[in-house]
Amino acid sequence: MKITTAIKKFKKPLYLESGRILEPYELAYETYGELNADKSNVIVVCHALTGSHHAAGLYEGDRKPGWWDRVIGDGKAIDTRKYFVICVNVIGSCFGSTGPLSKIYPTDKEYRLTFPVITISDMVKAQISLFDSLGIHKAEAVIGGSMGGMQALCFAIEHPRFAKKHIILASTYATQPWAIAFNKVAREAIIRDPDFQNGEYDLEKLRQKGFSGLMIGRMSGHISYLSPDSMQKKFGRFYDERDGLYDLFGKFQVEKYLDYNSQNFVQWFDPLSYLYITKAINIFDATRNYHSLEDSFERIRGKIYLIAFKSDLLFLPSEMKHIEETMKKINKASQVRYFEVDSDYGHDAFLVEIPKFEEIIMNALKESN
Amino acid sequence: MKITTAIKKFKKPLYLESGRILEPYELAYETYGELNADKSNVIVVCHALTGSHHAAGLYEGDRKPGWWDRVIGDGKAIDTRKYFVICVNVIGSCFGSTGPLSKIYPTDKEYRLTFPVITISDMVKAQISLFDSLGIHKAEAVIGGSMGGMQALCFAIEHPRFAKKHIILASTYATQPWAIAFNKVAREAIIRDPDFQNGEYDLEKLRQKGFSGLMIGRMSGHISYLSPDSMQKKFGRFYDERDGLYDLFGKFQVEKYLDYNSQNFVQWFDPLSYLYITKAINIFDATRNYHSLEDSFERIRGKIYLIAFKSDLLFLPSEMKHIEETMKKINKASQVRYFEVDSDYGHDAFLVEIPKFEEIIMNALKESN
Repeated sequence: MKITTAIKKFKKPLYLESGRILEPYELAYETYGELNADKSNVIVVCHALTGSHHAAGLYEGDRKPGWWDRVIGDGKAIDTRKYFVICVNVIGSCFGSTGPLSKIYPTDKEYRLTFPVITISDMVKAQISLFDSLGIHKAEAVIGGSMGGMQALCFAIEHPRFAKKHIILASTYATQPWAIAFNKVAREAIIRDPDFQNGEYDLEKLRQKGFSGLMIGRMSGHISYLSPDSMQKKFGRFYDERDGLYDLFGKFQVEKYLDYNSQNFVQWFDPLSYLYITKAINIFDATRNYHSLEDSFERIRGKIYLIAFKSDLLFLPSEMKHIEETMKKINKASQVRYFEVDSDYGHDAFLVEIPKFEEIIMNALKESN
Repeated sequence: MKITTAIKKFKKPLYLESGRILEPYELAYETYGELNADKSNVIVVCHALTGSHHAAGLYEGDRKPGWWDRVIGDGKAIDTRKYFVICVNVIGSCFGSTGPLSKIYPTDKEYRLTFPVITISDMVKAQISLFDSLGIHKAEAVIGGSMGGMQALCFAIEHPRFAKKHIILASTYATQPWAIAFNKVAREAIIRDPDFQNGEYDLEKLRQKGFSGLMIGRMSGHISYLSPDSMQKKFGRFYDERDGLYDLFGKFQVEKYLDYNSQNFVQWFDPLSYLYITKAINIFDATRNYHSLEDSFERIRGKIYLIAFKSDLLFLPSEMKHIEETMKKINKASQVRYFEVDSDYGHDAFLVEIPKFEEIIMNALKESN
């Protein structure tokens, strides 16, 4: 599988939903496989909150491959012998695309809290501008889980001629208060940490010291990605005996896992990006620029494949089902298919339970239009 | 309904499960109704994590009555015309019973982080010592929800001759990792807040300033008490229009609710008590001092009534069901009854959905032995 990683710099403005403008802006992206002569074999993969454009393949020196390496590759569900796959780091993120730590042209000053609020629509619009610059005006499919699914839905509604198929996993048509509440804990933990310094922190120092705000935020997020059952199976009540049971700070395995994971997280993610991307997730609502969900879905021309996971508590199967039902209501039953995957992994299932849904993706990609 | 509020001081030692000793110790408690001549009309009500002995009635100047006022009173499910109800503030708490901010006799120094880790068994043992001092050696029933249910189960196992009936709501036989994880977020938020000062904070100053650690902790707790559905019904996606949608710090109603509730919480709860009581909850495991749950339940002589709530995510109905099943396994089917209440209020249902379970309590209390 051929992999390229690049950063594309745009001198032109990106007009945001808020009315504000990013100019210039940059987009980091990765591609897998080869673009065919008539540019008709494109698949766009969209990443989630803490994901990046590094969706597949292994970087030299890394131990872990890209976040969907089990799905994207030669002979895999998204077969790179056939498809040219592109994954773009969303604006607002911290892996190379323009975000809060980018510099405000032409100064040397970073945006920090003056960075504009971005939306899922903005993320998608930026991607479209990248594809345009690559001469790509059509895709076989747009695929994404969680916030990636929001982007896929947004492609379907706002760029209805771009992709034939939209495969949406573990996502929603509008973020519900349960998810907003988990983000709230994280956002407050970040903002209220004195080390946040109103966004003017020194990232290197923050990482050396270990930034409590983002750690606590990550812990809150992690709970929402799992389920009571998956935690039970993964950790049980295992307690490290070296910690005395009657030691106030003794830890259960689940606590050690949360510690380890969140300490790690701080080393590779940025607190301001966390604030901006959770904001984009919170205000995501496919009805916002339309009268209703029906009205918004009227614009859809491609096919919608919905893959929900039974134990997903962050974006409930019922929310995904609501997308299917709304499509049916407006006589677009032939354009929508809903799958509910039995899993007790919770929201994380779209990253973990590949064998349970890879065939759905393969079949969706095979299906004639 | 006659109400008395008192603090009982014990000069004798309380031997804790950890091997440590509290000496002297104090217990704050409240009683409702009147004790009959042969002291045979006692009902013990046990409170949850942030509850207190003020279970019913309205204090002068207060707007809110005790936490289970809709259940306890003349003519209510726990009828104070018939029963003498006692609710004791658990040790480790901050409403009058000995806790981390109590003074280490005979010094003027407060325990703070030198306070011993307490367990649910310790909380129950302290209550038994209070009842002894009141000449009460038997109860018609012990009733509690959440951590109160853990206490009720502990009464049944460790003091099997004390109560005839044990009514356990929204609780478990052993705290599972999902609940421990929510507590983890809260505990880390408290400990990592610089204002915590390793437990040596000035509580008044903390309250004046507003203690972020405990606020964030409360938010995390609050999520666990609700459910996706109950949040959806309560808050939807309502967003205060006065906050611009593209304002990074603009808030949804669910966020404002969490702000309001947690700011309030800091004014009436203590961070160290939160650490000690969540520790007691985390390490609660009815099997710990026995070989197995069967072995532990062999000791039970009274009746067990289990009231689970369908949408409770903190202590799942399946955990309550496991108590029933284990009782049946050891041929104690006649001593156990399981009820599953249909509610989408989540864990909080035991405080909110009174009309849905008050009859179960009434019938349980009526049932002959």
